[in-house]
Amino acid sequence: MTPPPDAEFAYIEWLRSRTPPDARVLIGPGDDCAALAVPSPRPLLVTTDMLLEGSCFRLAEAGPRRVGRKSMAVNLSDIAAMAGVPLFAVVSVGLPRSMPRRVAEELYLGLRETADAFGTAVVGGDTNSWDGPLSISVTLIGQATERGPVRRDGAKPGDWLLVTGPLGGSILGHHLDFTPRVRESLALHEASPLHALIDISDGFAADLWHICEESKCGAVVFADRVPVSDAAREEAARDGRTPLEHALGDGEDFELIVAVSPTDGERLMRTQPVEGVTLSHVGEVVPAGLWIEEDGRRRELPPAGYVHRFG
Amino acid sequence: MTPPPDAEFAYIEWLRSRTPPDARVLIGPGDDCAALAVPSPRPLLVTTDMLLEGSCFRLAEAGPRRVGRKSMAVNLSDIAAMAGVPLFAVVSVGLPRSMPRRVAEELYLGLRETADAFGTAVVGGDTNSWDGPLSISVTLIGQATERGPVRRDGAKPGDWLLVTGPLGGSILGHHLDFTPRVRESLALHEASPLHALIDISDGFAADLWHICEESKCGAVVFADRVPVSDAAREEAARDGRTPLEHALGDGEDFELIVAVSPTDGERLMRTQPVEGVTLSHVGEVVPAGLWIEEDGRRRELPPAGYVHRFG
Repeated sequence: MTPPPDAEFAYIEWLRSRTPPDARVLIGPGDDCAALAVPSPRPLLVTTDMLLEGSCFRLAEAGPRRVGRKSMAVNLSDIAAMAGVPLFAVVSVGLPRSMPRRVAEELYLGLRETADAFGTAVVGGDTNSWDGPLSISVTLIGQATERGPVRRDGAKPGDWLLVTGPLGGSILGHHLDFTPRVRESLALHEASPLHALIDISDGFAADLWHICEESKCGAVVFADRVPVSDAAREEAARDGRTPLEHALGDGEDFELIVAVSPTDGERLMRTQPVEGVTLSHVGEVVPAGLWIEEDGRRRELPPAGYVHRFG
Repeated sequence: MTPPPDAEFAYIEWLRSRTPPDARVLIGPGDDCAALAVPSPRPLLVTTDMLLEGSCFRLAEAGPRRVGRKSMAVNLSDIAAMAGVPLFAVVSVGLPRSMPRRVAEELYLGLRETADAFGTAVVGGDTNSWDGPLSISVTLIGQATERGPVRRDGAKPGDWLLVTGPLGGSILGHHLDFTPRVRESLALHEASPLHALIDISDGFAADLWHICEESKCGAVVFADRVPVSDAAREEAARDGRTPLEHALGDGEDFELIVAVSPTDGERLMRTQPVEGVTLSHVGEVVPAGLWIEEDGRRRELPPAGYVHRFG
């Protein structure tokens, strides 16, 4: 909000010169607001995520390009979690005064290349320097498809629960380098009416529990069918917990959990219609509780993740 | 982005319980995205502003309620600067870990009461705790009226330049307590086709120069017609600069500068159609340069503001 000093003006000019024309963008960066043509009268989808140095990433470890990518990708993942189509993004940043211009440029290029990869126009933002650590806030605007947005609250007892990829250990790099499941979500929604949908940010068990809470039901997870990532095994070897514990509890996998009818679930598992992704049938919706079934025995599954923290 | 600990979950629940139902909001806070029904197929207007502790405000001086109000109001002012109607807002915050819950609540109440006053639904956000200072990012979505958005680039030589209120000295409190000129902007746009429009954030001379640059023209300001605020006089008595210098240079007045045809300008000045606001005819658009006319003499007016900084 502070009027930018000359160095910031120069950076903002650099940003503008890198903004390609887009038929949907009637007025782009440079006026008081962007003006945008929305392709259809369908509902807008809006999400915002703030990423904070030391809390969501360590800039020195991750590098600015990957931090930029993650800042955009977590928002794209939220659009995917409603089976929506991303359209427009705005980006606000608080840059530490000591940050070299080159680092700020890399940050922006990471944001932009991720937006570009998903047909998302970066239409504006607010660039500030301050004495605090790096703070990035992205707001993404998308639209539902003709089938409408998919919420968390439509799961029914008997539904099959599917996930779109291996889980756990994202701290080793996946939390920065994941591909948001935008295309996969749209392909699934096209192939089958989805009852409930969420992306895994808090952790598989925690996010499955969000579906249960909103849908007023429970779930049972089949331990032997949970796809465990190599990173989860690596983490397990290091800390003595099991790979399964990491797969169930670690945050920021950014895979999707989907609830579908048993008929659709069986068909999706047989046809595997989503290119580049192997769907796993990891559980079923039950009337109440959160359970894990292992060696024929069912026990309670705590819904809390083993949250990794940087701060 | 970090999964919230229990204290944050409780705060988020408190926020949700204070979000009233709104027919335009199909899915409100609590899912991965908000889903929103847009009233018309007219272009969307989108703006985002980030307010940073120490750089845009001092929390201890201003108090959290006013900081919340300002965070929303600066975005409303950007919608006003396009003659648009505000509709929806999302709010991301990085809260210092040491901030008491009561302070975070006041911050949110300030945001909400300002949004409410302008028919703006707060539809989502992202709440984080971190080790940095307070960081707030608001994104506002609005729509143009039937007359379309008003840009900065439509001023023509001969146009009259009007402002909506007294200028200068906002540091004494106005920069926190101003009323965004949303209603005034819509009333002006209804009364007359506006050629160019901007809100004063960087300072009158600096923002007038933005209009000139975008419109590829210049402007002359009549020194004796610039409305000087009491706060500008107070600041002048303190620092030895003139009240006019403060009116021309100080930032964050959040009044509007409007360019209209001479016929419309004459009529607007005569009829003063905007309730609660006295329009001042402060200058005219000329082919090139930025000038100030005082006692019959014209001299160059530097476009840079005397920017107040907190940091």
